Amino acid sequence: MAYNLLKGKKGIIFGALNDQSIAWKVAERAVEEGAQIVLTNTAVACRMGTIAQLAEKTNATVIAADATSVEDLEMLFSEAQKALGGKIDFVLHSCAMSANMRKKRTYDDLDYSLLDKTLDISAISFHKMLQVAKKMDALAENASVLALTYVASHRTFFGYNDMADAKSLLESIARSFGYIYGREKGVRVNTISQSPTYTTAGSGIKGLYDFSDRMSPLGNASADECADYCIVMFSDLTKKVTMQTLFHDGGFSNMGMSLRGMTQYNKSFIEENTDKETGKIIYG
Amino acid sequence: MAYNLLKGKKGIIFGALNDQSIAWKVAERAVEEGAQIVLTNTAVACRMGTIAQLAEKTNATVIAADATSVEDLEMLFSEAQKALGGKIDFVLHSCAMSANMRKKRTYDDLDYSLLDKTLDISAISFHKMLQVAKKMDALAENASVLALTYVASHRTFFGYNDMADAKSLLESIARSFGYIYGREKGVRVNTISQSPTYTTAGSGIKGLYDFSDRMSPLGNASADECADYCIVMFSDLTKKVTMQTLFHDGGFSNMGMSLRGMTQYNKSFIEENTDKETGKIIYG
Amino acid sequence: MAYNLLKGKKGIIFGALNDQSIAWKVAERAVEEGAQIVLTNTAVACRMGTIAQLAEKTNATVIAADATSVEDLEMLFSEAQKALGGKIDFVLHSCAMSANMRKKRTYDDLDYSLLDKTLDISAISFHKMLQVAKKMDALAENASVLALTYVASHRTFFGYNDMADAKSLLESIARSFGYIYGREKGVRVNTISQSPTYTTAGSGIKGLYDFSDRMSPLGNASADECADYCIVMFSDLTKKVTMQTLFHDGGFSNMGMSLRGMTQYNKSFIEENTDKETGKIIYG
Amino acid sequence: MAYNLLKGKKGIIFGALNDQSIAWKVAERAVEEGAQIVLTNTAVACRMGTIAQLAEKTNATVIAADATSVEDLEMLFSEAQKALGGKIDFVLHSCAMSANMRKKRTYDDLDYSLLDKTLDISAISFHKMLQVAKKMDALAENASVLALTYVASHRTFFGYNDMADAKSLLESIARSFGYIYGREKGVRVNTISQSPTYTTAGSGIKGLYDFSDRMSPLGNASADECADYCIVMFSDLTKKVTMQTLFHDGGFSNMGMSLRGMTQYNKSFIEENTDKETGKIIYG
Repeated sequence: MAYNLLKGKKGIIFGALNDQSIAWKVAERAVEEGAQIVLTNTAVACRMGTIAQLAEKTNATVIAADATSVEDLEMLFSEAQKALGGKIDFVLHSCAMSANMRKKRTYDDLDYSLLDKTLDISAISFHKMLQVAKKMDALAENASVLALTYVASHRTFFGYNDMADAKSLLESIARSFGYIYGREKGVRVNTISQSPTYTTAGSGIKGLYDFSDRMSPLGNASADECADYCIVMFSDLTKKVTMQTLFHDGGFSNMGMSLRGMTQYNKSFIEENTDKETGKIIYG
Repeated sequence: MAYNLLKGKKGIIFGALNDQSIAWKVAERAVEEGAQIVLTNTAVACRMGTIAQLAEKTNATVIAADATSVEDLEMLFSEAQKALGGKIDFVLHSCAMSANMRKKRTYDDLDYSLLDKTLDISAISFHKMLQVAKKMDALAENASVLALTYVASHRTFFGYNDMADAKSLLESIARSFGYIYGREKGVRVNTISQSPTYTTAGSGIKGLYDFSDRMSPLGNASADECADYCIVMFSDLTKKVTMQTLFHDGGFSNMGMSLRGMTQYNKSFIEENTDKETGKIIYG
Repeated sequence: MAYNLLKGKKGIIFGALNDQSIAWKVAERAVEEGAQIVLTNTAVACRMGTIAQLAEKTNATVIAADATSVEDLEMLFSEAQKALGGKIDFVLHSCAMSANMRKKRTYDDLDYSLLDKTLDISAISFHKMLQVAKKMDALAENASVLALTYVASHRTFFGYNDMADAKSLLESIARSFGYIYGREKGVRVNTISQSPTYTTAGSGIKGLYDFSDRMSPLGNASADECADYCIVMFSDLTKKVTMQTLFHDGGFSNMGMSLRGMTQYNKSFIEENTDKETGKIIYG
Repeated sequence: MAYNLLKGKKGIIFGALNDQSIAWKVAERAVEEGAQIVLTNTAVACRMGTIAQLAEKTNATVIAADATSVEDLEMLFSEAQKALGGKIDFVLHSCAMSANMRKKRTYDDLDYSLLDKTLDISAISFHKMLQVAKKMDALAENASVLALTYVASHRTFFGYNDMADAKSLLESIARSFGYIYGREKGVRVNTISQSPTYTTAGSGIKGLYDFSDRMSPLGNASADECADYCIVMFSDLTKKVTMQTLFHDGGFSNMGMSLRGMTQYNKSFIEENTDKETGKIIYG
């Protein structure tokens, strides 16, 4: 269902890779709500992904740009304003990659040049995007800027590796730049801390996904639901929300232990117990 | 501008006193967005306030009820469902009063029976409302429940007195009940932590209001803007947000010190300095 | 090992019931570190418990007092100063009880008069203690006051019931009163958020205890370790720490998921799988 | 006064520059408490500062090392173990520098290669130090590692610039590595969030220093008091505290507004009023 929440608004969506991406869903929903959009991703991702399909569906312009390159970002904001016919009202930053994880380097064996890459792609790119936009005065008054984050920025999840540090840095940038862009142009900058989501980026998290789902009273939030929440944060109804980490996670972030989670956890001990009773037929 | 975000939804609004009240604005906006509502307040407030005007304007039923009385709440949910023709989709709790503040008892000289009243009216009433609603199965699946809070629940503001403790308790109740009502009925329960607002309840905060405004990159959020945010949280676009304290404050909650705030603060010392330079004409 | 950290200091310990109590361990350690102490608990607890043993061992005076009674607290601070020969340097508040849990009332079926009791015993008693002490000027300059809390004040644990709300209120009181007592007398007020602990009060938490232990990189903190931490917070080496919730929990509070926790959790699914294979002998 | 809290312990102190440095005070106090220490700083700082004086006073070995260089850190941990005759029990990381601030680049005009430097020196060096130590197995079981931070990691202070982001990253590293080093060796890793302090590093913060002092019920914490707190965190009495940001700030972090702060702030408006009365001699 559509409400015209973004009627006449112009936006840029970073990071739509395929139809599982949260950014993809946001693009679709934004257009349903009346926005015109530009899609952007790296040149490689533009070739590999199916972004052309999305562009067609959403009547969007695709502009390839490396979010870690100031030059590319300058070109992007310049071209996007031309394509959309004016200043930008909303931006979604959905860029994250850990080269250390890809190379199977554990957190106590980081390659520091790869760490620099993780931070650059997943966090500093957000600063670059904001700094370039501000210098070019590319965002409209009261524009809304969002980045996607995860609760691992606050609490440690084994295996989340240097991405946890990148997300902490990202949220800090949202606060630091949100203050400056807010006071000068009324632009609000927030991050959405989303449930673990089955996307190309978020695969290989099966156990955690289940635990998170059982811990959350409303269950994990889906990519579609996340898109709805992004729409709301881009709309004119949330003009005074800024510098926040907004948890969109079915309640997970404020749970210590749920009955469903504990019940499942406790089953693990039954297994252990039965395991000890060798010599007896237990199921048969 | 209206979007039909609450089309067909039924809601109960606690605590609308006069046209300065946040609850009053929420009532108006909810109806603009397509909702049918019931207004409620204490019998005394219903007589003193101008709630009849609001009821007429919003085509609402007024049901007087004491939010600290389980019996009254049972009657309220029963009558409200009759008046609205079905289960309740959203509720706003906007009830707060410190009898200690009224009696000018400082925080280190509390009257404990008045403290009990503060907690009962400002926090426990929220639990009573939720417990009664749940026992009567009065809320629809995926209903959205909000209460208004203030950042003093997390950080101490001189003079906010026992209301700070009440707000902490309120936010805890939102988490505790949010977990249970979420897992069983998909109902979400959140609090909105609003900027200081010039209302009948929020008067006498001039210095703090100014400080808060200068500290917040977007300035203090108004009652109207708060109403918009409540609408969004009642809508179907935020279904997976629960158990949260949502800061709607122009960024105040994540500010340590702004340039505007510090500049103003520093003027206090210039005053002191000039004051010492007796014998010289400074302004003339 | 003792360091003379509390040499010459005078303290009051609330809530020592038996040798499993954290308060018991704190009493022992405080005396080892050179303090003189008064022990206090309700008259009933003084009779039921083995507090006389502890008093003998620690050369302490026992003064029965109901921590929810202002009169009793006045008597206590008056008698304690006489017994100890001067103002009080440190206080431990370790009082918590949920009558709703005892009566097996779930959180969505609270008895509100029992809730009042929970809040009074577990949280408001802390305010009463501080207010009485301040009015009587019973605490020495730079005195240190601690209360015990649990992370459920921030995140919901099923079954922790109205005690979660009481702990939120308790921590808020520590902030609110810590501000006032700090600015006027340099008194610091903090809460220690302790791991789940096997005490008479903390029984019946087996599954959670195990989960918490596996989640915490250093494992659950014991009552003895908690006593050490309390000593440190009573000493002169922590004079500028106030209004804080201090997590003493082996890291639990900042964990999202540990490898040990997840490994155990995942075993629960192996069980489920075997469960389906009816008709086959699995162990035998 | 000394308590022998670190008797027989071996430590490494990073970042002592001169007798105003917090690290300098920690070095002195650690030795008073019975520890043997190694002092380290960059080769340049070792030449410029007066570290030789401190080394003589504390009977310490000085080892010049660049905390951003893995090779240097390997050499440092190797040499330090030789100098101290065994594994390291405690480490203080007190390294922070913003090249952007030095070059007067504002936060919306960052030079990204300077940002990389800020992050490397102020945050990633902490990871390098921990990773090198762990790979070399240079820390004793239950060792305690501290880094100094500031509340700007959580809330934005104008002018704190990219250092705020560095401190967020630093605290995240403390959590992420604290989990791993804790589970494997019982090593605890924490950060201390200290009041603004008049040091060579912390100059030029006069207004903020005053505001912070008036906001904090116990006033700003001094470098000496910070040293005491570090001793406590290095001692055996805090073995189960890990992954925490520990606020040592006289209560500032949990204050919204103090009476002293507001009173001072309100004086600024008296000045403004007089300012408007042009044409009249006000002082003379």
